[in-house]
Amino acid sequence: MSVNTFGRMFRVTTWGESHGPALGAVVDGCPPGVPLSSGDIQTWMEKRRPGLNRHTTQRREADEVEILSGVFEGTTTGTPIQLMIRNTDQRSKDYGDIVEKFRPGHADMTYWRKYGIRDHRGGGRSSARETAARVAAGGVARAVLAELTPGLEITGYMTAMGPWEIDRARFDRAAIGTNPFQCPDAEAAADWAEKLDGIRKSGDSVGAVVEVTASGVPTGLGAPIYGKIDADLAAALMSINAVKGVEIGEGMAAAALTGAENADEISMGPEGPEFTSNHAGGILGGITTGQDIVARMAVKPTSSILKPRRTITKFGEATEIITKGRHDPCVGIRAVPVAEAMVACVILDHFLTHRGQVGESLPGRIG
Amino acid sequence: MSVNTFGRMFRVTTWGESHGPALGAVVDGCPPGVPLSSGDIQTWMEKRRPGLNRHTTQRREADEVEILSGVFEGTTTGTPIQLMIRNTDQRSKDYGDIVEKFRPGHADMTYWRKYGIRDHRGGGRSSARETAARVAAGGVARAVLAELTPGLEITGYMTAMGPWEIDRARFDRAAIGTNPFQCPDAEAAADWAEKLDGIRKSGDSVGAVVEVTASGVPTGLGAPIYGKIDADLAAALMSINAVKGVEIGEGMAAAALTGAENADEISMGPEGPEFTSNHAGGILGGITTGQDIVARMAVKPTSSILKPRRTITKFGEATEIITKGRHDPCVGIRAVPVAEAMVACVILDHFLTHRGQVGESLPGRIG
Amino acid sequence: MSVNTFGRMFRVTTWGESHGPALGAVVDGCPPGVPLSSGDIQTWMEKRRPGLNRHTTQRREADEVEILSGVFEGTTTGTPIQLMIRNTDQRSKDYGDIVEKFRPGHADMTYWRKYGIRDHRGGGRSSARETAARVAAGGVARAVLAELTPGLEITGYMTAMGPWEIDRARFDRAAIGTNPFQCPDAEAAADWAEKLDGIRKSGDSVGAVVEVTASGVPTGLGAPIYGKIDADLAAALMSINAVKGVEIGEGMAAAALTGAENADEISMGPEGPEFTSNHAGGILGGITTGQDIVARMAVKPTSSILKPRRTITKFGEATEIITKGRHDPCVGIRAVPVAEAMVACVILDHFLTHRGQVGESLPGRIG
Amino acid sequence: MSVNTFGRMFRVTTWGESHGPALGAVVDGCPPGVPLSSGDIQTWMEKRRPGLNRHTTQRREADEVEILSGVFEGTTTGTPIQLMIRNTDQRSKDYGDIVEKFRPGHADMTYWRKYGIRDHRGGGRSSARETAARVAAGGVARAVLAELTPGLEITGYMTAMGPWEIDRARFDRAAIGTNPFQCPDAEAAADWAEKLDGIRKSGDSVGAVVEVTASGVPTGLGAPIYGKIDADLAAALMSINAVKGVEIGEGMAAAALTGAENADEISMGPEGPEFTSNHAGGILGGITTGQDIVARMAVKPTSSILKPRRTITKFGEATEIITKGRHDPCVGIRAVPVAEAMVACVILDHFLTHRGQVGESLPGRIG
Repeated sequence: MSVNTFGRMFRVTTWGESHGPALGAVVDGCPPGVPLSSGDIQTWMEKRRPGLNRHTTQRREADEVEILSGVFEGTTTGTPIQLMIRNTDQRSKDYGDIVEKFRPGHADMTYWRKYGIRDHRGGGRSSARETAARVAAGGVARAVLAELTPGLEITGYMTAMGPWEIDRARFDRAAIGTNPFQCPDAEAAADWAEKLDGIRKSGDSVGAVVEVTASGVPTGLGAPIYGKIDADLAAALMSINAVKGVEIGEGMAAAALTGAENADEISMGPEGPEFTSNHAGGILGGITTGQDIVARMAVKPTSSILKPRRTITKFGEATEIITKGRHDPCVGIRAVPVAEAMVACVILDHFLTHRGQVGESLPGRIG
Repeated sequence: MSVNTFGRMFRVTTWGESHGPALGAVVDGCPPGVPLSSGDIQTWMEKRRPGLNRHTTQRREADEVEILSGVFEGTTTGTPIQLMIRNTDQRSKDYGDIVEKFRPGHADMTYWRKYGIRDHRGGGRSSARETAARVAAGGVARAVLAELTPGLEITGYMTAMGPWEIDRARFDRAAIGTNPFQCPDAEAAADWAEKLDGIRKSGDSVGAVVEVTASGVPTGLGAPIYGKIDADLAAALMSINAVKGVEIGEGMAAAALTGAENADEISMGPEGPEFTSNHAGGILGGITTGQDIVARMAVKPTSSILKPRRTITKFGEATEIITKGRHDPCVGIRAVPVAEAMVACVILDHFLTHRGQVGESLPGRIG
Repeated sequence: MSVNTFGRMFRVTTWGESHGPALGAVVDGCPPGVPLSSGDIQTWMEKRRPGLNRHTTQRREADEVEILSGVFEGTTTGTPIQLMIRNTDQRSKDYGDIVEKFRPGHADMTYWRKYGIRDHRGGGRSSARETAARVAAGGVARAVLAELTPGLEITGYMTAMGPWEIDRARFDRAAIGTNPFQCPDAEAAADWAEKLDGIRKSGDSVGAVVEVTASGVPTGLGAPIYGKIDADLAAALMSINAVKGVEIGEGMAAAALTGAENADEISMGPEGPEFTSNHAGGILGGITTGQDIVARMAVKPTSSILKPRRTITKFGEATEIITKGRHDPCVGIRAVPVAEAMVACVILDHFLTHRGQVGESLPGRIG
Repeated sequence: MSVNTFGRMFRVTTWGESHGPALGAVVDGCPPGVPLSSGDIQTWMEKRRPGLNRHTTQRREADEVEILSGVFEGTTTGTPIQLMIRNTDQRSKDYGDIVEKFRPGHADMTYWRKYGIRDHRGGGRSSARETAARVAAGGVARAVLAELTPGLEITGYMTAMGPWEIDRARFDRAAIGTNPFQCPDAEAAADWAEKLDGIRKSGDSVGAVVEVTASGVPTGLGAPIYGKIDADLAAALMSINAVKGVEIGEGMAAAALTGAENADEISMGPEGPEFTSNHAGGILGGITTGQDIVARMAVKPTSSILKPRRTITKFGEATEIITKGRHDPCVGIRAVPVAEAMVACVILDHFLTHRGQVGESLPGRIG
């Protein structure tokens, strides 16, 4: 019932607002005996941290994660892990204008109507700052996955900024860490940098497509119906701020294929089944095939922009709004580590759920 | 934890296999005092029933829903409603070939590896026949919504079959019920009929895009984080067989917009806020705005085709497979009422959840 | 959120009313590959079946369980198991008097006020007939436990009928199956038979204490806080109709002990830790010790009696009521297999949950 | 699935260990618009605080609750409320002896075996210190109940210390706050004080019975089967450390009654139905009657005592243990506010769940 929790066995509950004293996540159901330090988590926090370069918000947050429980002498105990991140650089006065005006395209109005109270400073609970807690929880998930499924790797990157897509022919995993866009196409990244400067200067913002690939995923995770791992990935990614579309494998493009084109043909390789292609994105019938999981999401442009938009106030009066604050001209950039974190949590959750129901090995052999 | 249940307050658990004696759904959490008969449900079942025209599987199922509990003298009692549908036209021998071969693009192999046992007749639990239970549950949800939010309307239709999209300029709601594709563009529908004949005759299949619109949705349903109504819609739609992508409002196309373009500007109308556009698809920050909810999903082409594909057997031997059975050349057609049913369940679930947490009215006034 | 479901990983959802066409349970999360037939379940149904002897209701129900899904060729598939039991001997006219009168001590009035609609025939959903579905689900749990933890045995029996308790010195497990009370003290059983004849003839009813022992329980099941196995047992037993008290080990009597008396001292035996006593009832800190789990519940006397009691009608008028129908003079008798079933489900649920979080072995060694 | 969470709509997740930096609770699902300050919560914390008198542990904790989220300008926002309590007076060296020895009657051994790692300082997660977080969460529940059901009062008190019970004829609600035992029988309290001095000096401990009464409870809360409010109360109370038995109304004594004795006869009063007695403890068929809810629990004597007990070490060696630390000779005393808090949370949870499913009023009228 909780609307601030996700996961079945590896459960993450986040809490906190953009401009309160702190925010964080409680991770419940974590296996015991896993080495974990705040440093392990900090690695991932760094990728999402604001202010890393000129393309992201200039809010300065150390985003230091304190582990308040669930870890004893460097090892998880199997009890809830509380991860707390203090807010240090709130500048609430930036939001004065939003107290009584609703930003078009933002949660301001729906939030107000639903609850009748709203922490207008930075959007309160609907701020993307909540995603810091997800990345912290994802760090825990990754530490556990490293123990349980060594070899599993989760990699996120941008495949489009606004209308500008990467060229898949230039896809180079090594390029991802070398540019501010986590872009696997270095040429596109250089182009985007320039484009984004222009957008930022014009007071506008732009959307993005983020793709996450997980390789080394065990076969057999998921379930046929409402526990499909792709259904859980869809919810997990759609729950990220500003996401409006989610795809697995071919995604929306699957609609245009024929059955013959779409079928990933199977052959027997030295270490098990092999596939001629991966239209399925690593998931068939809700269960992992052992191929790479490929998930994609579209992030809309942030609605906090300097261009004036027509709107109304709480009192129903017509007005205009521009949002000063310190916002990301392309939130897709910082959404990459968030998407990775969600994928990590979902995979681990299914790993534990599968182990619970079926046990530690796959009963269905081939050959 | 259940992987065969969805919903928080209005909970649907489905059960049953394609070729077992029966399948169905238990609906828990239904409000009491709602008029409900099996006839109310049957209306929706008709739209999904196989064999209605030459474009769908020729399996003949009456799909009659028996209400075994939860309704007394024509009214819901607030206790679990068991909806049972008997299977009557299983023709299991069609599936002889699948006992030991895995269909590419189908759940056969993943299912086998995970569980080590598989009802190969018609795919067992992974058959799209499970969706009959969803439509039945959706019928209950619609009956409740008719009581609680009169005026709410949920309409599904196909917007693309394979690479052939509708022309939005010809969008005509009245056309939807007049063609086998539930297509709002009568011209496209005529074209698709011809195209699909060709595809069927060639032993192949084709994907589709299905869109569902809900109008008259109350403002304030949903929650800011993991209880976003769009996250639940994404999971609900992605959980439908063969779905590979889910979109809300602009969907994947939102990535290409600027913030200024994407913002739906707000003005004050006689009955509350009005918007200049609906890029948001009726949802901002996970909460409904009162505008139409617009959700879309891509259905891949069915993998049960007559064209031979290379695959392996349970014993790891290379082989070829063609799937005889009686399959839909375009499962998107029958996915329309399924998508509608899922949207109905999600909206009702959020209605009840909102009422539980916040009460019967919206605390945040405008004006 | 479901109020008709229990369990985390092994989830049981029951449905159906006393006088509807059928009732049953959906069991979700069952491990695959477990041999299961309806005969396995029927064994346990027999113990609860009405009309077995003169001490229970004379309603005649075959209580035959149909497995509608989740089992293929005699083996569980890992998908939902639907267990359906048809009602065959409803005699609704017996309940004419209850349509407008509320039985004191019964759910009649609360049910009516909450829902505003009530299947008065036999109490609808609040009838103890619902417990048939629990016993069926418990049969599934037992079949799974037989595979996963061979040697585990769950035994229920009555330790008191009304004010008449067994003599623990005469406790003889072999006696349990030899009398209608499932009483381990044959002498007490003989006495109770006579006493109950008198109570029945006087048109009254009487309460009982039921104890369930589980031996061969693996160490380590449960969790320290809200997932304590004793907390789940307490909820499971208290959810049985007419139960007003639940005890683990010493139960309420623990309050009167000193710490020195209550501590079960530990020594090292050939196969692991041994204890000098079992005040704890096999559970410490919410986690199983490996000793026998001992749980107890008090069943109140049924409120459907032939002695007239003062009450009111739906219209608020003062009246008297006697309940004809066919009722158990001591519902405790038939509560024994129900309590066993609940204990079986809870233990299996914790087994699977533990396996999910911690894996297949206990990490903490002794010695 | 979470084993550190309870509640359906009003969900409480606790975290933290006895000797970590902090512990706390996240409260999710709280209605918006409720006035709440840390002072409101502190009131209840005071009742549980250690070291208030010579009868409780001499550990000195301020138990100050910080509200880190979910409250804005003195009002709940409807988003998760993080309640944090810093640990300040850990004296971990007291526990040196426990690192390798298992206290009989304590979670030490089960915890170790399950997780293979254990924060031995003060019992880690299995310490009763966790209950501070429950009292804080209960403070939130009370604030909400004060808004939603003014007039509802929840009162806990001890009815027995060890074998010494109160005399119900001397029951005086006003006496409860005037003695360290929260005892409604002032004479008994004076006697207990003397008795407990002796027990403490002998290095032993003693159990207790705690009763909680809730008056002014709305009719209609709960559900007929697994969502029975008494089943949830049973789980909630049994989840408190050291509790071994739970009773509603007559509790275990109900077994000894006849149906005629046990039935609370009903008449029509000026404001609705009235009852001649309250054997039911305010709950019939799992649903509240409007009478006082009466719940009771037995707290075993703490196992941390100065009397030496035989046990083993992690290495399987026979040894003796005495537990120094600073322990409560009668944990029942400080369990009173904890039990009250759990009852408050359960009632609110059912209030919200009822409102979600059924709406804001009771559909079933009488008269």
